[in-house]
Amino acid sequence: MDAIDPSFDVSNFMAEPLTPRSTLVNNKDDMKVKMEMLIMKIQADFCRALENEEDPLKKFLVDRWTRAEGGGGVTCVIQNGKTFEKAGVNVSVVHGTLPVDAVRQMKARGKELVGKELPFFAAGISSVIHPTNPHVPTVHFNYRYFEVTQENGEKMWWFGGGTDLTPYYLVEEDVRHFHSTLKEACDTHDAGYYPKFKKWCDEYFAVSHRNERRGVGGIFFDDFDMHSQEHCFKFVKSCAESVIPSYIPLVNKHRNDLYTSAERDWQLLRRGRYVEFNLVYDRGTKFGLYTPGARIESILMSLPVYAKWEYMHSPPDGTPEAELTEILKHPKEWI
Amino acid sequence: MDAIDPSFDVSNFMAEPLTPRSTLVNNKDDMKVKMEMLIMKIQADFCRALENEEDPLKKFLVDRWTRAEGGGGVTCVIQNGKTFEKAGVNVSVVHGTLPVDAVRQMKARGKELVGKELPFFAAGISSVIHPTNPHVPTVHFNYRYFEVTQENGEKMWWFGGGTDLTPYYLVEEDVRHFHSTLKEACDTHDAGYYPKFKKWCDEYFAVSHRNERRGVGGIFFDDFDMHSQEHCFKFVKSCAESVIPSYIPLVNKHRNDLYTSAERDWQLLRRGRYVEFNLVYDRGTKFGLYTPGARIESILMSLPVYAKWEYMHSPPDGTPEAELTEILKHPKEWI
Repeated sequence: MDAIDPSFDVSNFMAEPLTPRSTLVNNKDDMKVKMEMLIMKIQADFCRALENEEDPLKKFLVDRWTRAEGGGGVTCVIQNGKTFEKAGVNVSVVHGTLPVDAVRQMKARGKELVGKELPFFAAGISSVIHPTNPHVPTVHFNYRYFEVTQENGEKMWWFGGGTDLTPYYLVEEDVRHFHSTLKEACDTHDAGYYPKFKKWCDEYFAVSHRNERRGVGGIFFDDFDMHSQEHCFKFVKSCAESVIPSYIPLVNKHRNDLYTSAERDWQLLRRGRYVEFNLVYDRGTKFGLYTPGARIESILMSLPVYAKWEYMHSPPDGTPEAELTEILKHPKEWI
Repeated sequence: MDAIDPSFDVSNFMAEPLTPRSTLVNNKDDMKVKMEMLIMKIQADFCRALENEEDPLKKFLVDRWTRAEGGGGVTCVIQNGKTFEKAGVNVSVVHGTLPVDAVRQMKARGKELVGKELPFFAAGISSVIHPTNPHVPTVHFNYRYFEVTQENGEKMWWFGGGTDLTPYYLVEEDVRHFHSTLKEACDTHDAGYYPKFKKWCDEYFAVSHRNERRGVGGIFFDDFDMHSQEHCFKFVKSCAESVIPSYIPLVNKHRNDLYTSAERDWQLLRRGRYVEFNLVYDRGTKFGLYTPGARIESILMSLPVYAKWEYMHSPPDGTPEAELTEILKHPKEWI
């Protein structure tokens, strides 16, 4: 049966999709199905690409989990690898009803939802890679599709997502490569997307209480529903497919760089800031923390193995650490 | 002049009080003044007591700071000591107007405030001690006094505070000593306080998304205004004075205990949970993060030097680590 539709070959996925095979095959034009198939494939491709940069004996641990309230996910993790201190790539496909607190967290700007407990569907891929070597940047990406049915029966849908880079040391050429790759993915669909979503990214990933950004940005968007579902999906697909070419070359380039214990220390301090952003501001994390039955280990997988805080730490002027800090305080155009 | 009123001897304080000497002397019956003098003294006493447990060459770093919007604070920190990996004892005496977000964070249950930008005064002492040795528990305490003037001119005041203990390994005798000391301080004022505020503490210091408490509790209260200002102040004074006898003996008892690297590792994992509580739930931290001109380094001084996160970590049954986890999931009566 499966053989008749090769697009439903799931043999390369990290695990079985969350939705039963028959439901997928019978609803292949439904956006819920298209999104689930896309994120399962992106997960597998990205995990393989990361494994290629890792000790061959170190492979992703794969946890397929289900959620009592509806749906589930596939969480893939490498911990304490040679290249990756922590690499998490998580897919989730969940449905049910959303309580007020979670609705509040998922509401992007201007998205007014009517009702208190709303039936919803959410499919997304989310990943944070914390490399061992301080010269390899951290990357995060997340692409998601939501459907919510309001009290009056009206169904709303939208996409959201983004990819952003958090280096510990600034290599301008690398940042330009990263941004150029994202820009190319955007430009195929609309020349206005990259500038708009680059700016949104700088605004979103702000550690406001520190008056700095968490990294050198990338792209970020939400409430993406202003064109046909098909147009929106294709754009999201391009973005998700640009993660590997934007990031993996940087891993490959720097994973064997020499580094000092002072550089490792700086990496841990910056990871402390990463933790601050994720726990204080990140909408995705909050959405997870407030969703009943959410799998907490998959949500907080984004946290690094080690993080450090030092009272009044400030890198001396003229150092590479100060150079990075300057950029985080004043985001710039890279291309 | 000062000689005539020995209660205004500030020579033992860690720094000059925030309010000018003449204002203090001329308003010595004003609760704002009484609270400032109390917290300056508690800070000095606690810092000396901690220094007694520390390498004699390691002393508190003292930062006296002012806030452009009004007031300031005195932040005392030991970092990377022999006994204390990080010890922070912070006093702040601030005034000005509060924006909506901060008002929302400072509003304890049932405290309805009328207006958007309200004139306020807040004086408080806040401290978190993260010892080096995993057999010495972490302690936190915070005692504070608020005045807010509503839009209709009505002035409200209240006290809040608490002391709570976060051990990495459970020593029941120590926890009983800690709770008994707090109970004695409470009982002098009202036999109903300890049971009520012990329960409130268990409820407040919940890492809800983990379904566990951050430690073995203590006491916690807010909106404390149901008696005369003088009664309330005396109660808060007793609580603040009970910190040294409740905690310092535990430091002294365990600071030279032998420990393994696995025990250190467990301590770091638990510190990760401490970070989760402080950044996701703690009202004091949020109040700080949303207060314009707040001194961020003094607020986030509560974070440990190192913290760790491990995907799906769970201590094996029957280990001391599992024993602690069990208590964190099911708080109990200690006395």
